[in-house]
Order: sequence, then C-alpha cells, then structure tokens
Amino acid sequence: MEFLVRFDTALPETMTDERRAELKSAERARAMELREAGVLKRLWRVPGRRAVVGLWEAPDATALHDALTSLPQFPWMDVTVEALATHPQEA
Amino acid sequence: MEFLVRFDTALPETMTDERRAELKSAERARAMELREAGVLKRLWRVPGRRAVVGLWEAPDATALHDALTSLPQFPWMDVTVEALATHPQEA
Amino acid sequence: MEFLVRFDTALPETMTDERRAELKSAERARAMELREAGVLKRLWRVPGRRAVVGLWEAPDATALHDALTSLPQFPWMDVTVEALATHPQEA
Amino acid sequence: MEFLVRFDTALPETMTDERRAELKSAERARAMELREAGVLKRLWRVPGRRAVVGLWEAPDATALHDALTSLPQFPWMDVTVEALATHPQEA
Amino acid sequence: MEFLVRFDTALPETMTDERRAELKSAERARAMELREAGVLKRLWRVPGRRAVVGLWEAPDATALHDALTSLPQFPWMDVTVEALATHPQEA
Amino acid sequence: MEFLVRFDTALPETMTDERRAELKSAERARAMELREAGVLKRLWRVPGRRAVVGLWEAPDATALHDALTSLPQFPWMDVTVEALATHPQEA
Amino acid sequence: MEFLVRFDTALPETMTDERRAELKSAERARAMELREAGVLKRLWRVPGRRAVVGLWEAPDATALHDALTSLPQFPWMDVTVEALATHPQEA
Amino acid sequence: MEFLVRFDTALPETMTDERRAELKSAERARAMELREAGVLKRLWRVPGRRAVVGLWEAPDATALHDALTSLPQFPWMDVTVEALATHPQEA
Amino acid sequence: MEFLVRFDTALPETMTDERRAELKSAERARAMELREAGVLKRLWRVPGRRAVVGLWEAPDATALHDALTSLPQFPWMDVTVEALATHPQEA
Amino acid sequence: MEFLVRFDTALPETMTDERRAELKSAERARAMELREAGVLKRLWRVPGRRAVVGLWEAPDATALHDALTSLPQFPWMDVTVEALATHPQEA
Repeated sequence: MEFLVRFDTALPETMTDERRAELKSAERARAMELREAGVLKRLWRVPGRRAVVGLWEAPDATALHDALTSLPQFPWMDVTVEALATHPQEA
Repeated sequence: MEFLVRFDTALPETMTDERRAELKSAERARAMELREAGVLKRLWRVPGRRAVVGLWEAPDATALHDALTSLPQFPWMDVTVEALATHPQEA
Repeated sequence: MEFLVRFDTALPETMTDERRAELKSAERARAMELREAGVLKRLWRVPGRRAVVGLWEAPDATALHDALTSLPQFPWMDVTVEALATHPQEA
Repeated sequence: MEFLVRFDTALPETMTDERRAELKSAERARAMELREAGVLKRLWRVPGRRAVVGLWEAPDATALHDALTSLPQFPWMDVTVEALATHPQEA
Repeated sequence: MEFLVRFDTALPETMTDERRAELKSAERARAMELREAGVLKRLWRVPGRRAVVGLWEAPDATALHDALTSLPQFPWMDVTVEALATHPQEA
Repeated sequence: MEFLVRFDTALPETMTDERRAELKSAERARAMELREAGVLKRLWRVPGRRAVVGLWEAPDATALHDALTSLPQFPWMDVTVEALATHPQEA
Repeated sequence: MEFLVRFDTALPETMTDERRAELKSAERARAMELREAGVLKRLWRVPGRRAVVGLWEAPDATALHDALTSLPQFPWMDVTVEALATHPQEA
Repeated sequence: MEFLVRFDTALPETMTDERRAELKSAERARAMELREAGVLKRLWRVPGRRAVVGLWEAPDATALHDALTSLPQFPWMDVTVEALATHPQEA
Repeated sequence: MEFLVRFDTALPETMTDERRAELKSAERARAMELREAGVLKRLWRVPGRRAVVGLWEAPDATALHDALTSLPQFPWMDVTVEALATHPQEA
Repeated sequence: MEFLVRFDTALPETMTDERRAELKSAERARAMELREAGVLKRLWRVPGRRAVVGLWEAPDATALHDALTSLPQFPWMDVTVEALATHPQEA
C-alpha cells in the first residue's frame, strides 16, 4: 500500500553545526536503507521550503509509522500522512 | 489495518420520498453485510448532523475504497478517511 | 456516552531523559487503570505523529475531563474532544 | 450535561411563504415544549445572521440528537454541537 | 447585552508553583466579584482543555473589555468575544 | 457602541432586472434613513467584490440586528459582525 | 519538471448516463495518450472520494496547464497543482 | 500604486456557447484597453484552474474597483485584491 | 485612500516594565502625531484582546507602510492591511 | 517559467544589531546579483509586514529552489512558491 508523506523538519537553533552534520548524514544513510528495502520510493523537495514530499510503500499504517520513526531526524519533523488507493487505470 | 471514516450524506432535495426510503433500506442492508464481513466495525452519529463516524478494517486503502463505494448512498456522500496505526499499548 | 479524543503530546526539549521515561511509564500505568475501569476503550497511533486518537466512555463531559486530567502527561497535551451519539444501526 | 449548539437555518428559495410560516410556527411550538422539558435552556440570535446559539441540557449526545432532530426545521439546519463540562467554580 | 467569551489560559512553564497558586486564587476571587456584580453569568470548562467558555453581561464591549482585563490571569489569556442578540423567543 | 459589519450580497441569477433595480433603490433609501438616525456611520466598498464594510452604532447587538434586518436586501446578504470597544486614546 | 496534481471531479447530477459513460471513456483514452507521452506518470485514488492525485511531468507550468485542459472532464474538475523540485538524494 | 488581483471566473452551466464566446471576446477587448491605459500590467494563468493572477496599477482602490467592474465577465468573477507597497530595492 | 489596519502587539515576556512603559508612551506620542497629520483617523480596541483595529488614510500602500513602521512598537506588531474603496453612497 | 514567491523573514530576537546589518547588506547584494541574472524580476513589500512578494523566473522549481536558498537570510525565511503559467493574452 502506498502513502504520500510530507515532512517539515525544524532542527532547533541551539543545535551545534557538528550535531547537525551528524544528523543529516545519519538521515541520508537511513533513507538509503529504506529505499533499498522498497519502503521509500520517491522524495521531492518543496521549492523554497525545508519540506519534503515522499512516496512510501508499506504493508499498513503501523509499518509506515515504524519506518518514519526510524529516521534520525524524526523527533524534529512535523509529518502528515495520506493513504493512497490504487487507481483503476493502474490496477 | 483500521481506518477512521467520516461521511456527510446529502440526498438531493428533489429525490422522492420513495427513492429515499429505498436507498436508506439498501444502505442499511449493505452496511449489515460489511459488518458481518468484519469491514465495518463501529458506527457513531455526530450529534445534530446527518454525519456519521465509523471504524473500518480493510487490508489496505484500495479495499477500503471498494467497500465504501459499494454503499448505495455513496454517490451522495462526502467521505474523509484517516489511516490509523496500532498503538503500542494495544500491540 | 462515548467520546472521540485526540491528543498531541509535546514534552519540552529541556526535559531530562529520566523525567521523560518516568512520565511515560506513569502515563502507561494510568492508561491501564482507565482501561480496566472501562473509561478508555481503544487507542490508535496517528501514523507519523506523536498524536493519538482514542475512544473513551464516560457518563458526561465532566467525568471525561476528570479522566483526561488524571493522565500524568496532561499538562503537555493538546486535547480535542468530540461527543458521539449512538448510531441507530447499533441501538 | 450541557451542550452549546449552533444552528444556521437556510430554507430553500423555492419554499412558499405559506409553508415557511407553517414551519416557523411549528418550530416555535416544538422549541417551547423543549424549554418546558428543560432540554432547551437559552437561545441567542447571532447578530446579522439567521444563526442561533443555544444552551441545551440532555443526559447524553444521543438524547440531544433526538431533541435536535425533533425540530421541524431540522432538515434545513446546519448544526454544530460542543460538549461542555462543569466549571469547578460552579460545581 | 450578553457576550459569549472563550479563554485559553497558558501560564509560562517558568512560572513558580507559588506564583501559579497565588494567581489562581486571585483569579477565583475576582471571578466571584464579577459574578456578584452580574457581569459573569455562567462558566463552562471545555473538556480536555485548559479553556473556558463563559456567558457575560455588560452594557457594551468597552465595559466587557474592562471586566476581562481586570482578571489577574488576563496577561496570559487568549480571549475571543462573540456579541449576542436577544432571541425573539426570549424577548 | 460601535460595530464593524461586513456584507456580501448575492442576488439570485434568476431575479429580474426590474426587481433588482427596485431592491437597490429601496436599499439605498433605507441606508439613508439609518445614516440620518446615526446607526450607519460609514460604508466602504471592498475593491473587486460585491462586499461592503460598514461602521455602525447601536445601543447593543439586538438593536444592531434589527437595523440590519430592516435592509431590503437582507435576505440575500451574508453578514458578519464584530463588536468594537473604545480605544483608550479616544476615550 | 514534476508536479503533484489533485483533481476533484463533479459531473452535474443532470448529466445523462450515456454522456457520463462517453466522457469517462474519452477521459481514459486521453489519459493513456498522456501516459505514453510521459506527461502523466502516476495516478492514485484518494480513498472514499472521487478525487485523484497524480504525478505529472512537463517542461513548465504552461505545458502542464495545456495537458490538464486537454482532459475531456476538465470543465468539471477542481484542480490544484504543486510544483516539485528534485530532492538532493535523487539528483 | 500596484495591486495583485486574483480572479476565479465561473460562467453558469446554463449559458449558451454563443453568449460565452461573445463574453470572452468582449473580455479580451476590454483587457486590451486596460493594458493600453497602463492599468493592467501583467496577467498569469494559475495552472490547472480557470483562475488568473494579475498585476494592476491604479491611483487608489476606488479606481482599481472601477477598472475591475468594467470587465464584461465581472458579474461571474470571484475577485481578491492585495495592495502592494514599493520595495526599498526598487524605490 | 483609506485602509483598515489590524495590529496584534506582543511585547516579549522578558522586556522590563520600564522599557514597556517607555515604549507605550512613545507609541501614544507617535500615534498622536499621525492623528494630527490625518493619517490615523480612528482606532478601536478588539474586546478581550491586545489587538487594535484602525482606520488610516494615506496616498498609497507605500506611504501607509512608512506610517506603520514609524510606530515605536512596530517590531512587535503583527499587522494586516485591507485596502478600502469609496462606497458609491459616500462618493 | 515564472513563479510568485512570498517570504516572511523573522530574524531571532537574540541576533546582534551588527549581525543583522551584515545579513541585510549581504541579502541586498545577493538579490542584486539575482536581478542581474534575470532570476529575480520584481519585488514588492506587503504593507505593514516584514513580508515580501516577488516575481521570479527560473527554468524549473529546482533552479528556483537553488536561487532562494542562495539568499543569506534563507534560514530565517518562511517561503511559499506558486507556479505561474503564461496567460493566452500574453503568449
């Protein structure tokens, strides 16, 4: 089952540059694992924003939630999830 | 997987009373079948409104969509669906 | 009478890990008591969020408020309550 | 238990003046019965609008829904209900 | 003239418990004076929230504003006011 | 007491030009009476819209409602009212 | 350049079943041409709604607009378009 | 003074094709006059919608309103106007 | 040209009482100058809020912006501006 | 392709005046480069706000995003982007 997921990530102003760099690289590594596992299928940047739209696939909303919370930046993300059904033209 | 589903049903003013009664009884019959199949689990009335909140279970959003569109009043319903994940206290 | 209740919990960044762990375990314990008392009937995770949707039962809104404020994390919760009426198919 | 209830009533343009007068007088009569029964406690006009705010008392949301749907103009009302808890200063 | 008034009070996290207790008792005392003066007529708790809905009576919006700003917690309240007209059934 | 009042007037497409002209001239006549009575103090056009913002003065919301409903176009107006308090710089 | 496009299609109640069937088949045929041309890349059903989310690719917003207006049901669609930038992980 | 103006035009379903064509050509002619007069400076299409964003220049909001109402399709437009100030980088 | 302007002023909790008093008196002095210059015409208090609605007159939005930014409390104000056109009844 | 872009810039209260002045001058310098490159075409001030509306031109949303993030104040801007299509009157 596919989901459209939006994140808006806001790291706190007080976070050190080192911690930020660390988090970004851990985030990218985890995202790559989720891509290889077929859970994260596409990612787009919302122009002008620190926000991201993604296409995810998971057996259900619980598995999706587990994938999302496995992202190292999850504690600073505001996430919204939209469940998608298959369109008859693609069935 | 469970879903929280809201319907707001607005039959057109021009529909005859006979057609309304027919639709309501067909709706109830189909809802009963969906309950027996374990797809429709609970239904609540939103007080003061023709709206209904329901708890549904389906393998994915495509199966849920098929169940919803099988309701005889579907063409006159405004429906919103919220995907639910299992809460750790209930896992 | 049943109520649909949404919480969005935001513990402050400055809270220590110890205090967090303590609060989470106190929260779970109190939730279990409310389940046993039949006040808290179901709980779902909103996927991708620290938010929770619950089905509660209480004699009236005052009793519900007392149950909600008895949760140890209540001071950090943003809560919205929707009163539900019995649906004729379930009466 | 008390409820704050808002109605916005919109009788269709095509309704005859006779039917309108009939409905308004039936509405007033039913409202009076509900006042005498202690269900409808106060009613205010929202200035400049055909809308009304009311204070209602009913054992639960199901009983409130039944009272609201007993109003002759109910089919043309858009209704929203807010459940109220007792304030500690009034307990 | 009556007004429906909503408050959402948010005392800052950094306020001491002593200062909070002091403020709450001063608030209750001032509210009691306003009740006796017939300015504050009813107060309800919004279930699950630190919010309050009240029915107030004042000669006009200026007098209402003065009553509201006389509350000791006013600096931390987010307040919205709705002017009410007399309903013909109560005139 | 002053009020800021917004109207959005939408005469039905099916109304004849004659009826429209009649209504507009009756509207203007009634507005003039309300200006002379000191109830309607100012009127502005919202640029690009059939909407109007007005400054009204009335003893209370009930008197304001009566003034607004005395406008011949009232049945086709969507009206919102905001109660205003005196600013200390003007007291 | 990719775009996320939402449609909500509402054919008028008065349209004959024949005209509806004709339109749906013309819509499907045009969608297939746009898929073959690489303009329409994915389509999902929003569960419970007549709405569709699609992933489109076009050189710019003008070319996208031309593709959208070439759909036979365009006159009855409410469309919203969100421009997407490439995410660095996919560059 | 410049203004950013959005129109959403919705000609009624019942309008004949002939009347539509007539209106569109009258609209284009009037727009051209307003461009020559320097009142209408730019016009963009909102992709996927019958909506238009325009940059207009007029001495004040009253002159802008007169320009907008001179458009033949004005009775079927929903218009919103945003007043713009000169940016210091362009002063 | 007239403008309807709303301010919501929120001085930071950490500002000293002395600095607050200073700012308020500077604000009042500047407002008086703007009144004498015919730029600030009326000011109302929104009951229950630290917000203010004002009627301003300026040759255009740039001059209005300059007047607003000349207020000493401007850095802590959230301001919204609505351009007004002359109503035909007042022309 | 053109884009309408809104920024709302909020430098933190704790930033020194020196750092602010530095940032503003770097911002102006970068904006000038983007104007010379034909990427930034127009800029307007939203009256009464620290917000800016701009007309930008870029080959696609990715190039626009790169231009926006090259602004020195980008980390403190809340940005929204609207893709524009060419209007047939200007084609």
